[in-house]
Amino acid sequence: MSQVKPSLASNATGLDTAAPILRLPKTSESETLKKIRHTTSHVMAMAVQKLFPKAQVTIGPWTEQGFYYDFDTPEAFTEQDLKAIKKEMVKIIHKQLPITCEVMSRADAEQRIRALGEPYKLEILAGLKEPITLYHLGDLWWDLCAGPHVETTAQLNPKAIALESVAGAYWRGDETKAQLQRIYGTAWETPEQLAEYQRRKEESLKRDHRKLGKELGLFLFTDIVGPGLPLWTPKGTILRSTLEDFLKQEQTQRGYLPVVTPHIARVDLFKMSGHWQKYSEDMFPMMAENEAERLREQGFVMKPMNCPFHIQIYKNELRSYKELPMRLAEFGTVYRYEQSGELGGLTRVRGFTVDDSHLFVTPDQLDAEFLNVVDLILEVFKCLQLKNFKARLSFRDPTSDKYIGTDEVWEKSQNAIRRAVEKLGMEHFEGIGEAAFYGPKLDFIFTDVLEREWQLGTVQVDYNLPERFDLEYVAEDGSRQRPVMIHRAPFGSLERLIGILIEQYAGDFPLWLAPEQVRLLAVSEDFLPFCEDVANQMRSLGVRVLVDQSGDRLGKLIRNSEKAKIPVMAVVGAKEVEANALNIRTRKSGELGELQVTDVLARLKTALAERGDF
Amino acid sequence: MSQVKPSLASNATGLDTAAPILRLPKTSESETLKKIRHTTSHVMAMAVQKLFPKAQVTIGPWTEQGFYYDFDTPEAFTEQDLKAIKKEMVKIIHKQLPITCEVMSRADAEQRIRALGEPYKLEILAGLKEPITLYHLGDLWWDLCAGPHVETTAQLNPKAIALESVAGAYWRGDETKAQLQRIYGTAWETPEQLAEYQRRKEESLKRDHRKLGKELGLFLFTDIVGPGLPLWTPKGTILRSTLEDFLKQEQTQRGYLPVVTPHIARVDLFKMSGHWQKYSEDMFPMMAENEAERLREQGFVMKPMNCPFHIQIYKNELRSYKELPMRLAEFGTVYRYEQSGELGGLTRVRGFTVDDSHLFVTPDQLDAEFLNVVDLILEVFKCLQLKNFKARLSFRDPTSDKYIGTDEVWEKSQNAIRRAVEKLGMEHFEGIGEAAFYGPKLDFIFTDVLEREWQLGTVQVDYNLPERFDLEYVAEDGSRQRPVMIHRAPFGSLERLIGILIEQYAGDFPLWLAPEQVRLLAVSEDFLPFCEDVANQMRSLGVRVLVDQSGDRLGKLIRNSEKAKIPVMAVVGAKEVEANALNIRTRKSGELGELQVTDVLARLKTALAERGDF
Repeated sequence: MSQVKPSLASNATGLDTAAPILRLPKTSESETLKKIRHTTSHVMAMAVQKLFPKAQVTIGPWTEQGFYYDFDTPEAFTEQDLKAIKKEMVKIIHKQLPITCEVMSRADAEQRIRALGEPYKLEILAGLKEPITLYHLGDLWWDLCAGPHVETTAQLNPKAIALESVAGAYWRGDETKAQLQRIYGTAWETPEQLAEYQRRKEESLKRDHRKLGKELGLFLFTDIVGPGLPLWTPKGTILRSTLEDFLKQEQTQRGYLPVVTPHIARVDLFKMSGHWQKYSEDMFPMMAENEAERLREQGFVMKPMNCPFHIQIYKNELRSYKELPMRLAEFGTVYRYEQSGELGGLTRVRGFTVDDSHLFVTPDQLDAEFLNVVDLILEVFKCLQLKNFKARLSFRDPTSDKYIGTDEVWEKSQNAIRRAVEKLGMEHFEGIGEAAFYGPKLDFIFTDVLEREWQLGTVQVDYNLPERFDLEYVAEDGSRQRPVMIHRAPFGSLERLIGILIEQYAGDFPLWLAPEQVRLLAVSEDFLPFCEDVANQMRSLGVRVLVDQSGDRLGKLIRNSEKAKIPVMAVVGAKEVEANALNIRTRKSGELGELQVTDVLARLKTALAERGDF
Repeated sequence: MSQVKPSLASNATGLDTAAPILRLPKTSESETLKKIRHTTSHVMAMAVQKLFPKAQVTIGPWTEQGFYYDFDTPEAFTEQDLKAIKKEMVKIIHKQLPITCEVMSRADAEQRIRALGEPYKLEILAGLKEPITLYHLGDLWWDLCAGPHVETTAQLNPKAIALESVAGAYWRGDETKAQLQRIYGTAWETPEQLAEYQRRKEESLKRDHRKLGKELGLFLFTDIVGPGLPLWTPKGTILRSTLEDFLKQEQTQRGYLPVVTPHIARVDLFKMSGHWQKYSEDMFPMMAENEAERLREQGFVMKPMNCPFHIQIYKNELRSYKELPMRLAEFGTVYRYEQSGELGGLTRVRGFTVDDSHLFVTPDQLDAEFLNVVDLILEVFKCLQLKNFKARLSFRDPTSDKYIGTDEVWEKSQNAIRRAVEKLGMEHFEGIGEAAFYGPKLDFIFTDVLEREWQLGTVQVDYNLPERFDLEYVAEDGSRQRPVMIHRAPFGSLERLIGILIEQYAGDFPLWLAPEQVRLLAVSEDFLPFCEDVANQMRSLGVRVLVDQSGDRLGKLIRNSEKAKIPVMAVVGAKEVEANALNIRTRKSGELGELQVTDVLARLKTALAERGDF
């Protein structure tokens, strides 16, 4: 098989999560970075006006990624222009210009601007409060600005600065106003930071789940179905159901009971739960037969959450304390009317599947059951190889009216979450105003390999819905008591989780999750029967295996398998058939060479059972 | 363990499908029965007027189950009254009154009615065409009637007649009109037929899936969620997913590919498919943000069928003939806006899950693939022990405009179905006007143990949607060709199937389908650890087993297990622990006595693998 080895180039993008990465400061948290980026944007504007005297400056703020500046200019900037601008910026920086602040009255500022003949600055000035501040670059250039800035351009490192792209933008973001040219740039403290930022940017483009989802054929969106409504291909569906089955198995072991509920209900259900009053702007419009029904609010609505339905099942019988904790679980698809501008890939959709469960517990059971839930969530994260997360205590904003329930009940619920987090000794922080409208949450915030944060699993404590739905159980002494509810979802949204996993794994799913786990490639069609035989042995172990039947030449077979990111590829030629072996190459560990079929089967079995690598 | 045997009374309602049953004639198909029922209803009316001289007769037609007659009477009839009426009827029958027909003009009939002083008859007369016919019972009583009748009351057998119930009814079915008293009765050729009819009636009440569904705790409906929207309890959900998993497994083996699609889409999708034009009255109302959007039909609608979504997935890539047949499968929950008056239990609902698949095939593959689908459906029926069915060729009504597509395409599709049925040599009949709006169907009509007919699986051939969505594949010669679609669903609706199965099995599910398969009952709590140990051994085989932990006395444990219709019950006392055995009783085969635990495990394993009995 030596002839195939050269084509088996190591282009696996498998992720080494153990590799140390340079931490990057955030603009919002670093005064230094704010100064650098503000000043760099001024330097860029000065350079632009030097090279393009007709260009008028408008606004130029810092962002978390760098900065931008919008210019009114007769012609769009080209890539070539950006290079020239950068060159000019380096010159300016090398001039070691001091940056000075001048404070003045509105009238003086207006006079100064009129002298310059820049109408945008006048508009900007109208929105500013006195005293007005101007920042000067030496005595060569100035702009209205609130700062902060570095002291001299000498403090900027040209090697830590990059101009990135040009895009159209409207003045004041208003389509009816002038079309401007926006130049995006970035600036850092050191060239190393810039390099790390650029590496992450490139990597995040490569990992983009929308791009990879298309390349790997996992899901699709179409205009005619509508934005934010993913359709899952066979491969994507296998991924979904593998995740679902994994969690179902964990849940069965922990005494969860599966239920299935409708995707719609009468408006009345959501009035009773409070969704209609507090959450209706996130819900799809009502389905009403006619205007009269609409006005009387007698139609149906799609569920934005599963809780009121699980409550109906609880309430169907008079429950005894012996039945509690009752853990009702459903992969329930919910629909939320996100604005179409906010939709992007799988991370923000209009229809998504929550790995939802509602636990009805006695007050005595609350703390222990809450910890059990957290334990399950941590186990799930572990199996998914998601290691880097912290806990957010998402509490009510006491000044807002978007919540239901009394202060007392909120205190009780928030304290239950505090107790749990303290007991667990987890790293955590409080997010005021992040609670659900009916109760506080413990959210798990996951930080990915590119230091981006994603909200994953959630656990909520709820004394309110049991009250609103008048839930009861018969206690040991025969009295009627009110249960407490725990709402929980380890994945959160199955769709978003898959989006995050695609980016985290860069499309290289761990063996147990990969839609196609093994692909057998025959050097010539003479070896296809052997491949089919091996494939059947693998299938009997539950392995998702494919024999490539395309009849293409080996080089192409290998390239296609690499492109599809199949975790295990096995090449079969005369030598392998002779030895009842497979020539194995994995995405994770590279070339393993010839292995006996029985060894391969045993390794596959172990890897799948342990959710480990081959 | 002998002390428990007396309580293990044989009250299993397990069904012996091999038992011969008396065939009952249908009124609509039997001239004799029509005559008997018409005449019996006249005899009843005569008896009523004899006993209740103030009662006025209105209408009294035959039905498939018997007949009824509506009376305007000052007081409601009681159970006691029915007995008296029946007694009076017997007297009338014994008078051997000849039944004679009198033909007359409208004017003469009117005169006759006015003399009698019965205003309802006048109203009825107004709706009749000349010549008017009166039927006389001897010369004692007459009514307006079109017949047919027997020749003399002597031809009625009082022992084949029963009065069944009384209910309120409005004149002309109009709530604003007079409230009448309706007496339901039935009449047959022989007392044996009556007895069989009554047996079936009683049996169908016992088997009623709404009643059993509640008793067994499988599903529920609540007013606040809405009519026709079932919620599935843990037990019902296990039943659902067992059925789903069974079919998924069969499908995987036959090369079906799973997909998942949203429950809603923009109206445009259903315009393209033709649903909006031909099917919108069966769809839930549109979700539109405002009136303008509604008028422009720019909102979203719930899917009444899955086909347009699967088409989107097919269309996502340019397909090659090598990929066909492509069999996309989804347990897709659809929503149809049935009138709330038409909803009843699971057999007619507003939200249901179709075990849907759409096969995209080349024209050459159509016949073979159609037969493959039928083969799968027959296999499914076999596993579900549904033996008694016939095929309906559901064709277009050529005079109706509710279909899309050309005559030629309809001919092609209908012929494909004819060819398949002929090849299979199946018993079949044609149902004109029963086609889907886009194509003809082959429907499987199942006859249950009570001779009731239910529509189950369906296969459809469709040349229309591929045309409307401009579907293509690249043929072997490189040309672009149009695929044909097969729509198919062996279960049809998962909800309706479960309703039918509950009634067919009378709640006694075969072992593999039972939500709880085995229940272990300890004679005293000393034996609970042994039960738990055995239960764990069973669980490792995938058996759904419960140890009754209620601490109730054995008699109650047994009664509860019988009530819950658990297929296998195992009692454990000192003797069993000693012998490492279980005292087994099954619903299907009754008392099996003491069996070694290892034997029980082996029998369970075999029964589950073969979907057979324990």
